Order: sequence, then structure tokens, then C-alpha cells
Amino acid sequence: MKKVGIVTGGTTKFTKTDISIESLLVSAIKQIFDNSSNLSQKDVDVVLTSTNANNKYLANITSELSGMAPKIAHSVESLCNSGTNCIVSAYAYISSGLADVALVAGAEKTDSPGLVLDWDKSRGQYKHPIYWSSMFTSAHKRKFGTTLEDLAYVGANNHRNALDTPYAYFEKPFSVEEIMESKPLTENLRLLDCSMPCNGSAAILLASENVIKNFCEQPIWMTGIGQKAISASFTKNDDLTSMKSTILSASDAYKMSKKAAEDIDAAELHDAFSICEIIELEDLGLVPKGEGGSYVRRLYDTKDRKINPRGGLIGTGHPLGATGIAQTIEICQQLQGKAGKRQIDGAKTGLIHNMSAAATSSTVLILES
Amino acid sequence: MKKVGIVTGGTTKFTKTDISIESLLVSAIKQIFDNSSNLSQKDVDVVLTSTNANNKYLANITSELSGMAPKIAHSVESLCNSGTNCIVSAYAYISSGLADVALVAGAEKTDSPGLVLDWDKSRGQYKHPIYWSSMFTSAHKRKFGTTLEDLAYVGANNHRNALDTPYAYFEKPFSVEEIMESKPLTENLRLLDCSMPCNGSAAILLASENVIKNFCEQPIWMTGIGQKAISASFTKNDDLTSMKSTILSASDAYKMSKKAAEDIDAAELHDAFSICEIIELEDLGLVPKGEGGSYVRRLYDTKDRKINPRGGLIGTGHPLGATGIAQTIEICQQLQGKAGKRQIDGAKTGLIHNMSAAATSSTVLILES
Repeated sequence: MKKVGIVTGGTTKFTKTDISIESLLVSAIKQIFDNSSNLSQKDVDVVLTSTNANNKYLANITSELSGMAPKIAHSVESLCNSGTNCIVSAYAYISSGLADVALVAGAEKTDSPGLVLDWDKSRGQYKHPIYWSSMFTSAHKRKFGTTLEDLAYVGANNHRNALDTPYAYFEKPFSVEEIMESKPLTENLRLLDCSMPCNGSAAILLASENVIKNFCEQPIWMTGIGQKAISASFTKNDDLTSMKSTILSASDAYKMSKKAAEDIDAAELHDAFSICEIIELEDLGLVPKGEGGSYVRRLYDTKDRKINPRGGLIGTGHPLGATGIAQTIEICQQLQGKAGKRQIDGAKTGLIHNMSAAATSSTVLILES
Repeated sequence: MKKVGIVTGGTTKFTKTDISIESLLVSAIKQIFDNSSNLSQKDVDVVLTSTNANNKYLANITSELSGMAPKIAHSVESLCNSGTNCIVSAYAYISSGLADVALVAGAEKTDSPGLVLDWDKSRGQYKHPIYWSSMFTSAHKRKFGTTLEDLAYVGANNHRNALDTPYAYFEKPFSVEEIMESKPLTENLRLLDCSMPCNGSAAILLASENVIKNFCEQPIWMTGIGQKAISASFTKNDDLTSMKSTILSASDAYKMSKKAAEDIDAAELHDAFSICEIIELEDLGLVPKGEGGSYVRRLYDTKDRKINPRGGLIGTGHPLGATGIAQTIEICQQLQGKAGKRQIDGAKTGLIHNMSAAATSSTVLILES
């Protein structure tokens, strides 16, 4: 199997400004070409688009608008982890030898039809994702004594980190107190515990070891991949204090890369809601079970950027189909030493966690410099 | 790279009866398990759904409803060749070593949003696919003297073949005269020159050479793959008597499989409209350029089933996301000697051609027993 590396990425501003999904995709893709001086449109064998939008033939449309005529072009949808599904698919095309260069571009609009889980009859009237995260919160509080103040530290960390991310939706910090006092939406979650749906696009370029040195000096290698789809409906999740699909995906990704949680220098976690980051820290093995709450307080006090260095979904916004790609770009930049003010010194091994719909499915990727 | 084979397939009746897309998918998938006695739900590493429907998270929903919890699950969309895009993606997952067993299931409803090409401003008001096929027809008539009677032979052949396909939408034959006299829709195309959008599903199981013998005695190997996306809009097609994406895809597929057009014993061609089959016969190298019209007459006279043995899209119906999968199942059954009344004696090498939107993109697959 051929080794697969990441060359570079590009991200549009995450915003509420109404821009067409095609324009968003083309803007992110343009940055790929701007960042890779030797890359021409003819080099691109695969174009995959990641979105929950109802637009059809979007990979072909985007290819034509960007001057590309790839061999393989299609759209991938798997709700919030569409982006990493696309990246793993691109990995497979390259690793199998069907392609040498793959461009993955994700985009979403604020009115994405992926935001309401209306197929899941097990949710009754509680179709908005906030309800499952509220149930996760109650369970974690009950079992581990996690507090609503712990949750607010997740938001405070991520909003602080996002101040150094040029494309982030939020451009001002929020204190623990402001988050605690933001509008209550359920019995235990407040507005600032939630990530914000927004317009945005992210694109990333992958290439085989045969050709990658033509396009960049510092390729970042995809060495670990884990994915698991437990179910589609929430009732299949038997323990609301953990995410089974995340545990299984992490186990596979660590095994494939021969790395362990202790080796991770930088991690992007899917903080769709504040409780998610706390549970994911535990389920990825980054902290012992039940200690997610105290860990996020420690991150705040020490200004440690290891977790969600770009500000996560809570700080930067959550354009569904773009999120997993933006997360992967961040880890790539951290490992290339190109993360600017966000740089984690000496980061060599990074992890991306991206999930959908109450973690009924998850993706975990391990990248290495 | 691991060799990838096809185990078996399943197809629902193609119909206008209103059935949910989830029920269609589950019905086709059930046949996979019925046909593979040693296969358990736990064996399936990948579930990909192929559709133009706006349903979200369909691969996960379908997995849950069918008792599967795969590693990789997502939906793929690329209009009419979504099905073969999914199959090639499954090939890549297996060939790269990320998976051993992949289940691909496609489904569509008659009201699919993939039927009208409304992003393509170059078409002006002519957004229905019949307009591009009508332009192809005019160009082929002008350059090669192809007649409207030649076109009617495509339909007559495919309707005759479809009589032996249990799942086909049409259950009665149409004569050349009946097709000639069917309702005119454009200056040169009649109702029976068109494939019929319908409800239907098709599912197929692929596995690596490591494990495939556990599930079947006669695996069919995927030895050639070619794909090309020229554009999304029609105006990029510079010659209306041929399909550039098909020519390039065929060239790659023949090269990868070390086969030539002369080696093909059975071929499924994407006859969305009658003119398509004539042009594709030529562009796939199965007949010399310009001789598609006379060839389909010869097929009729000799009752030769080599082309579209199951009756093509015109005879069986065209549920967009299922079509490429149903085509692949047919060639697989032909090479396994399991095609019943449709069997082509001694078929050893087969070809599938599946395309989208005026052949702005094409897939060509070569299968071998």
C-alpha cells in the first residue's frame, strides 16, 4: 500500500453572510492552488465534496468552476463527519493506487438540512441535537460529578483559542461567567455550550508518497485511521457517559499508527456541544474516565493549547460538511510548524476526532510529521 | 494491492409503487444475506449508499435497519453514475487494506431531485436530460446518417431482453413500429426512446481475495476501472457525436485490465436514451465509429444478447442511484453463469458503462470470472 500524505489546506471565513455553496468551495480550493506553487489543475485525480446540502453533482460543478477534470468526482454525506469520511475515501483511492493526488472540499450553509435529525423516531419530538447532548450532560453529571461550570471552561478555552484563528466565526472571547449566564436552552445547556451552524468551506490536498514531494517540503502523513458506525438512532447508545463509536475508532487508529494517547501532541475534538469535548477527552484516552471536567479547567489555567488549538467547533463555528476538513488542516499546520500564534511547540503527532449525531458514528485520524 | 472480487447482488422490483427509500434499500440488502449463507452482519466493514435522494445519514440508517454496524458508512452522490462511484470507492477501501468486505446499496424514487439539471445555466430553459440526448441524436444523424429507425431498434432489443429480467419495470415487449409511433417528445426523440425513472434498489457485495472464498465459490474479479469527469455543464462537450469521458474511462479500464474491446463477452451500456447506446457502442470500441446504428439492427436480427442482456435502462427502468449497481450485478451473474434465461454462453469478461448528465462524467468497469 502506498503511504498517503497531506500537502496543504485552505479555509474560507466562517460566517453568517449568505454566499453560494459553489462560491464557498471554489474559494477554499483556490487557497490549495495558491499554497502549492507546483500544483496544476491537471495533477488532481480525485475531487470529493463533503456536504449535507441538497445540491447535486457538486463535485463536478466545483471541478469545472476550479478548472479541474478529475478521474473520480462525487459528493459524500454522513452528517457532521462527512469531512473525515471524504478524507478517508481520498486516502483509500491513493493508497490503493487508483490515484496520486486527491482534493477534498467541504462546505455548508447555515440552513443545512443535516441539522435536524428527523429520521430518528426514537428521539420523539426531540429532534434537535441539543437534546442528546443535554442527556449526555445529565448522565455525566450524575456519574462523575461533572458541573455546569466545568462545561463553561470548555467554551472559555475554545473561544480564547479561536481568537488566533483568522477564519473563526467568533471574534471575541467569552468568559466562564458569560457562558454560565448565556441563554438557557435546556435544563443544563446554555447557548454558549453549543457550536454555531454557519456558512463556510475547507479544502485539503492529499497525495501519494510517489508525488507528494513535488508539491510540498513538509508532507504530513496519515498513519492511523479508525471509523465506526454504531447506529443511526440514539437509543442504540447504551451508556450516555461515553461514545462507543469513538472508543472503537480510537482503538483502531492507535493500532494502525502504532501510537498511543500519550504520544498525541495536538488534538482536534468534535465539540459540537461542551459536554462532547469532556467525554471525548476520556474516550480517546487523553485523560482517565471521569476526569474530563477537571482537565478542561487545567487547560484554562495553564493556557495549554493541546486540545482544539484552533478553537474547536464552539470557537470557530460548525459548517457541518467542512468541519472534519478544517480540523484536519489545523493538525496538519500544527505538525508543519505553520500554525502561527496557535503553534504548539514541537508537535510531531496529532489526532483528529470527528463524529455525527450523538456519536452514532465517529472518525479518528492520526497524523505524523 | 489486494485483489477485489464481487460475491453477489440483490435487486428489488423496479416499479412506480410508492415505497420508502429505506424499505427499498433493506429489501435489496436482504437478498445479499439470503444469497451468501456464510455472511453475517458482523462481517461487513463498509456500507455505502448510492442515491440522489435528499435523505441524510442513509448509510447509517440502512445499516441499523439491516443489523450492521460497519466501520465506514456514508452516502455517495454523482447523479446517474452514483452507483459505480460507490462500487469504485468500495474497491478502493478493500484494495487499500482498510476493509475486507463492503456492501454497496443504491436506491431511488421516481421523484428524484437528480432528474433535472437545474444548476447548468448553459442549458438555458432545456434542463431536462432529453434535450441533450436530442442534440446528440441530431449530430449523429447528420454525421453518420443514423436514422430514427436505428434508434427504435435499441428500444426493441432492450425491451425484448427485459422480458427475461424479473425485476424489470416493463413487462411487455415493444416492436420497432410501436416505438417509432410512440409519443414524440422532441423533434427526434419519442417516449419509448427514453428510460423511465422509477422506484428501485440494487445492492452488491465486494470482498478481498483474503476472505471472498468464505462467501462464494465463484467470485468475479474487478480487473479494470476507468473514470473521468470532464465537466458539469453540457457546453464543455466539444463533439456531440461522441462522449469524451466515456472514451477516456474505457481507455483506462482496458489498460488496467490488460483487455481490449474484442475481449468483451457481455456489456451493460448506459442507455438513458436510445442514442446513448449507439454512441457508447462506438466510444467503447465495441463497433467502429459511425456503425452503432447498423450494429443494433444486427443484434435485433440475430437475437444477440451481448449488449444490455438484462434490457438496459430502457427495458428495466432507471432508478438513478441503483442503476450502476444493477448493471454490475448483471455482468457478475453473466460471468458466474447464473443469468438464467438471459445467460450468454461462455461469458468470461464483461464491461459496465455508467454515466451522468450528457456523459459529462463516465465510469467503465471490467469484470472477469
